[in-house]
Amino acid sequence: MTTLRTPGPTLGVVGGGQLGRMLAEAASPLGVEVVVLDPTPDCPAAPVARDQIVADFDDEAGIRELAARADVLTFEIELADQDVLERISEDTGTPVHPKPSTLRTIHDKLVQKRELEDAGVPVPPFREVEDADDIRAAIDDYGAPVMLKARTGGYDGRGNVPVESKAEADEALESVAGPAMVESFVDFEREVSVIAVKGDDEVATFPLGENVHVDEILRETIVPARSSDAAAERAYDVARDVLEVMDGRGVYGIELFETPDEEILLNEIAPRPHNSGHWTIEGAANSQFEQHARAVLGWPLGSTDLRSPTVLTNLLGDVDEEQRAELGDIDRLLETPGANLHWYGKRQVRPLRKMGHVTVSAEDEDADVEDLLETARKLEDAVTFRN
Amino acid sequence: MTTLRTPGPTLGVVGGGQLGRMLAEAASPLGVEVVVLDPTPDCPAAPVARDQIVADFDDEAGIRELAARADVLTFEIELADQDVLERISEDTGTPVHPKPSTLRTIHDKLVQKRELEDAGVPVPPFREVEDADDIRAAIDDYGAPVMLKARTGGYDGRGNVPVESKAEADEALESVAGPAMVESFVDFEREVSVIAVKGDDEVATFPLGENVHVDEILRETIVPARSSDAAAERAYDVARDVLEVMDGRGVYGIELFETPDEEILLNEIAPRPHNSGHWTIEGAANSQFEQHARAVLGWPLGSTDLRSPTVLTNLLGDVDEEQRAELGDIDRLLETPGANLHWYGKRQVRPLRKMGHVTVSAEDEDADVEDLLETARKLEDAVTFRN
Repeated sequence: MTTLRTPGPTLGVVGGGQLGRMLAEAASPLGVEVVVLDPTPDCPAAPVARDQIVADFDDEAGIRELAARADVLTFEIELADQDVLERISEDTGTPVHPKPSTLRTIHDKLVQKRELEDAGVPVPPFREVEDADDIRAAIDDYGAPVMLKARTGGYDGRGNVPVESKAEADEALESVAGPAMVESFVDFEREVSVIAVKGDDEVATFPLGENVHVDEILRETIVPARSSDAAAERAYDVARDVLEVMDGRGVYGIELFETPDEEILLNEIAPRPHNSGHWTIEGAANSQFEQHARAVLGWPLGSTDLRSPTVLTNLLGDVDEEQRAELGDIDRLLETPGANLHWYGKRQVRPLRKMGHVTVSAEDEDADVEDLLETARKLEDAVTFRN
Repeated sequence: MTTLRTPGPTLGVVGGGQLGRMLAEAASPLGVEVVVLDPTPDCPAAPVARDQIVADFDDEAGIRELAARADVLTFEIELADQDVLERISEDTGTPVHPKPSTLRTIHDKLVQKRELEDAGVPVPPFREVEDADDIRAAIDDYGAPVMLKARTGGYDGRGNVPVESKAEADEALESVAGPAMVESFVDFEREVSVIAVKGDDEVATFPLGENVHVDEILRETIVPARSSDAAAERAYDVARDVLEVMDGRGVYGIELFETPDEEILLNEIAPRPHNSGHWTIEGAANSQFEQHARAVLGWPLGSTDLRSPTVLTNLLGDVDEEQRAELGDIDRLLETPGANLHWYGKRQVRPLRKMGHVTVSAEDEDADVEDLLETARKLEDAVTFRN
């Protein structure tokens, strides 16, 4: 049986960006404390964390200090170094969740796809790329375009290059420094995601979200997704199969393609709370951040039930060049019933940087998500980054 | 128009107990930082506040430091010293909300009742007590029992003494050290409260809560209250009249009696977020803590709409003597859909000390609050303070 003590358990979190900040906000009501490690002094999580250790994500001394202060280690960025985490966890006895082996699998998209395919998870056709001939062979097999992906290091679409024809293969491969893989381009009906939680001996999934990306960066998530019940059920099944492959407790963001014939294919996995799950703070019974805290501690999971249909819109840096962060004209946003602001506290705004987000939640369960989406877009349009 | 900057505005809060902690949790998504002043090292708010200044609530040097770091000063305890706050605010130019003059009014229950009566707020019959004869005269006028109250320093029922007969008058007066007043005992149908927000040029009220007290300490709040619509409307009218008397922005907890003939009478006012408003974190569109942050900063208020019927139950120290805080058997609480835990992080548990609270929110708007109340009581019964 779980027991609360004071001071409560401490989560040691590698990374102190907005995910760490929202994790600290959600951990506090449970009596759980958060210490973050992040190289940026006064990182977004710092004002609400117990402490920040200023160190690089793979800094061994810093992570040892984090492990010494924590009851469990976790991470909010895939850039966490699995080898360092594994070694320090073994040395100190402080567990890491999700497990470093999961990071290792996810870090290499080719390894990831192979393991998932072996486990029966539906993935788009893919192959390893050793030279440009492999890309041309993929175009022969799958048809153009294909998606060339760096095997490691990419996120928010970085390292992904669409290849429209065989003639582009050499140039595309050059633009992806390092090992690569190629995937069939999925002509999807919509992009969706399942935020899934792996607990001690239970799993849970949040209601399906529908994601709108522009330039491969998430702009909006609409919940519930405008998918059929059958497609949603398939997505939950795929998410549960994915969790079988993942080792260690925690929240996983599982991005999926839904095809025109309502098939579900895996796109990407993030072994952490995910941008497309931020709607859960207002829209679900217990948020993805609370669930992550519970899961990594080995506590019982909470309810993932929908509280009300909710649309999330990101506040991206709508500026031409880096400058001091200043978002004006937020009155309408603050005044709109059902709207909630989340500002991440980043000092500088850069083009397309994630500076915050807004959710718009319905007042009743039968609300039309189209109306929520319209409201969210108007609110996002009304705010302005000052130059 | 309101503008967000990073670092955001800082609230300097006198007091760092659970109210300060929940204020910090709610301020963070708005990009608002919190610094608290509290004499207890590592007070409940410390893990989620930017900083704690360890100093007594009336420590002039400490409050000067707080004012220097803050854009606006506020307080989470009535014990804040109005004179010190007023002087430091004048010296430093850092505004205080609510205004110290409001604290001055509220601190003296006799002054408070007189000002409110003058403003047309319905209050139970009362009179000043200079000696025991005044108590006996009150019994003649109002009938027994009457309620003898210390004019200053009381909260959670401390300093309130029911007087059943004239024979008890002398002894009762001795037990109340210092100036006193006496009030007609209200034979109420139920106790209710309105959490009201005074903004820059707007006021807002949360839906009426029904409060269950035992030994004058709040045990449960039921929302919506089981009052008629007419009684609820009268309560909102009274709350708005009370805000007219209060000077300065912020959240006010307004405790009321509802009589068997559905009249509303004022009981007590807290010039701060109130225990009977903790349900708003899950149950309302924007919580009392978020509204307090918005109000004191002069930002637009958010929506006070009900999200779903919600019952709050306090986790009071169910122990015989002071000991290290340890609450066991919380699994059922963690697993119950709609239940949310708030643990305040106090090191020591004492008999009847407020250690945390639980809310149980309905899944749909037509839910029966009786069912929620039953669930909340079972959850509260299931947890155990370990000896």
